[in-house]
Amino acid sequence: MQNILETPVLLLDERRMQHNIERMQNRMDKLGVSFRPHVKTSKCLEVARRQIAAGARGITVSTLKEAEEFFRAGVEDILYAVAIVPNKLDHALKLIRAGLRLTLLVESVAMAEQVARHGAEHGVCYEVLIEIDTDGHRSGVKPADPMLLDIAAALQGGARLKGVMTHAGASYDLNTPEALEAMAEQERSRCVAAAMLLRGAGHACDVVSVGSTPTALSARHLDGVTEVRAGVYVFFDMVMADVGVCTRDEIAISVLCTVIGHQPAQGWIITDGGWMAMSRDLGHQAHGYGVVCDADGQPLPDLGFGKANQEHGVLQWRGDAGVDIVQRFPVGSSLRVLPNHACATGAQHGQYHVIPQNGGDWPVWPRFSGW
Amino acid sequence: MQNILETPVLLLDERRMQHNIERMQNRMDKLGVSFRPHVKTSKCLEVARRQIAAGARGITVSTLKEAEEFFRAGVEDILYAVAIVPNKLDHALKLIRAGLRLTLLVESVAMAEQVARHGAEHGVCYEVLIEIDTDGHRSGVKPADPMLLDIAAALQGGARLKGVMTHAGASYDLNTPEALEAMAEQERSRCVAAAMLLRGAGHACDVVSVGSTPTALSARHLDGVTEVRAGVYVFFDMVMADVGVCTRDEIAISVLCTVIGHQPAQGWIITDGGWMAMSRDLGHQAHGYGVVCDADGQPLPDLGFGKANQEHGVLQWRGDAGVDIVQRFPVGSSLRVLPNHACATGAQHGQYHVIPQNGGDWPVWPRFSGW
Repeated sequence: MQNILETPVLLLDERRMQHNIERMQNRMDKLGVSFRPHVKTSKCLEVARRQIAAGARGITVSTLKEAEEFFRAGVEDILYAVAIVPNKLDHALKLIRAGLRLTLLVESVAMAEQVARHGAEHGVCYEVLIEIDTDGHRSGVKPADPMLLDIAAALQGGARLKGVMTHAGASYDLNTPEALEAMAEQERSRCVAAAMLLRGAGHACDVVSVGSTPTALSARHLDGVTEVRAGVYVFFDMVMADVGVCTRDEIAISVLCTVIGHQPAQGWIITDGGWMAMSRDLGHQAHGYGVVCDADGQPLPDLGFGKANQEHGVLQWRGDAGVDIVQRFPVGSSLRVLPNHACATGAQHGQYHVIPQNGGDWPVWPRFSGW
Repeated sequence: MQNILETPVLLLDERRMQHNIERMQNRMDKLGVSFRPHVKTSKCLEVARRQIAAGARGITVSTLKEAEEFFRAGVEDILYAVAIVPNKLDHALKLIRAGLRLTLLVESVAMAEQVARHGAEHGVCYEVLIEIDTDGHRSGVKPADPMLLDIAAALQGGARLKGVMTHAGASYDLNTPEALEAMAEQERSRCVAAAMLLRGAGHACDVVSVGSTPTALSARHLDGVTEVRAGVYVFFDMVMADVGVCTRDEIAISVLCTVIGHQPAQGWIITDGGWMAMSRDLGHQAHGYGVVCDADGQPLPDLGFGKANQEHGVLQWRGDAGVDIVQRFPVGSSLRVLPNHACATGAQHGQYHVIPQNGGDWPVWPRFSGW
């Protein structure tokens, strides 16, 4: 069946994806928060539709291109979760004027002032979250930093402070339930503290938005939080398996490739799935370019994937030296590879081939890219 | 000027590219060989047109999608330089029947037999090169391996042996003129030896095709070689600068990004150019995600680029600790980043923005992706 596909090709196991969607949504429902999935992982309307059908309220995007594509498809409430800069304001304005309820992010007084001025000049009032740094991982204002109040004060006229947002990206480097639960609590408590500081100074702060896949799946309670965001949970990947928030059997995407040759003396099986198909993302450096599986998706621990060129994957046989790898994995045979990082591997492909549930045709779901 | 572009965006310096094209073509002309550029680097018709206008004869591709796109645009002589497998033969057949002169690659008896059978069944005669392994780097048959003759013998009926091909990818790991010249000579001599073995056994072997950017720029002579292939030379990148075959001033593409925030305590300048814009390719691990430059492309050695998330680049200030990085690189200011690997960075983008030579508009050259 898979041999009729021209490889390499990105496979999607819809049943696993649906399980992942329901697992997260059920958790959010129980924790009593809204869920706003981050669609940067899939960049695919069919996937987002299923997240919304399961109960998501609005979506999160990493680019205005994503905002534009999903708005065109009917999603009307979108958070652009990267700090806005001047060269993107005209694009944001255009989307808002077309009817999108777009929320922007700032983390500096300078940008808060520019957003407010741009809004005032163009007769709109931008809805804005302030980014809070709860883990020292990347962007944002520290929760007790008095600059928070300066930013809030600058959001006047053409802008309105809607709330605070944080992303505990540091959770990707943890791998015990205890550490993850502690990070989830740190993310929650610090973001709530920032909201309290703002409210204490008289600012409205309706939204308290937190999230990353590991913390969303590890939080014990989310008191004071209004919404959670997560992206990669929809597909999962080896990084998430290493963190410990999914099993390999929950990973919903894989790259189907074909054996194109061998170097028996080196134990190499060469495939047409190189870094262009996998991405260069090495995750936690534990699985090379990904976990090699047979055509049905069962991991083959005897095959490593330590080397890749643009359209060549070089797999290393590390099993019994007596095995004839040319016979065992003949030219033309199929292998599947579980990705280190679903967002990065997905981005290398223009569509998902959805594994047919009862045989039959392969549905093809397009995904977009770029800015 | 650059501030009007919505970042991140891939910039192309056409003047530098034209210099690179002429440098390579002049060298090939002097060495007395045909030149068949590898278009996997640019995947852009405008770029390939300039390579052909400068004297290239035919092109090399890494996917049948590239073959299809360039054939549609009028290129009629294309070498698909990855070993063919059964699931791609129908696609190849379709292109040949549409009039493309497509050359295929094999490196096993099994595939030689399948190609010949497929051709016979469909009434075409595939033109085929045998891949030779001249550096132990990846694929191919060793030049003195008797299997060469078995493959040649299998190319009967629906297939015809056209010649031999090799790619000395190991040259990417060298960095002295002496080592590069030796590798170029090894690539040449071993590929020619394979051709001699085939000819000695009575097989026609018209084509002897070698190449990689480093060896093409380092070969002293190419006796016995009929054509050279190279790809990344058209743009160059930091890997090629590390190898020593270009200067930073010859690198023709860069990613324009915008400062979106800071973490002054850590010396971080955060931009909207993350790994989605740069790729995850770390090259020789010497420059992080790329070499940070000012908006005009002058390197800023005080800025490292060691960390990237999907849409965030985290630059590290490593200059004078007394500098106020918020003032020096304010939110909204532009930076450019030279890529580690032009093929990988280019693949993250849907178009090139060509730097206007005399001010004015930015020409936009589309590039395609996928399979």
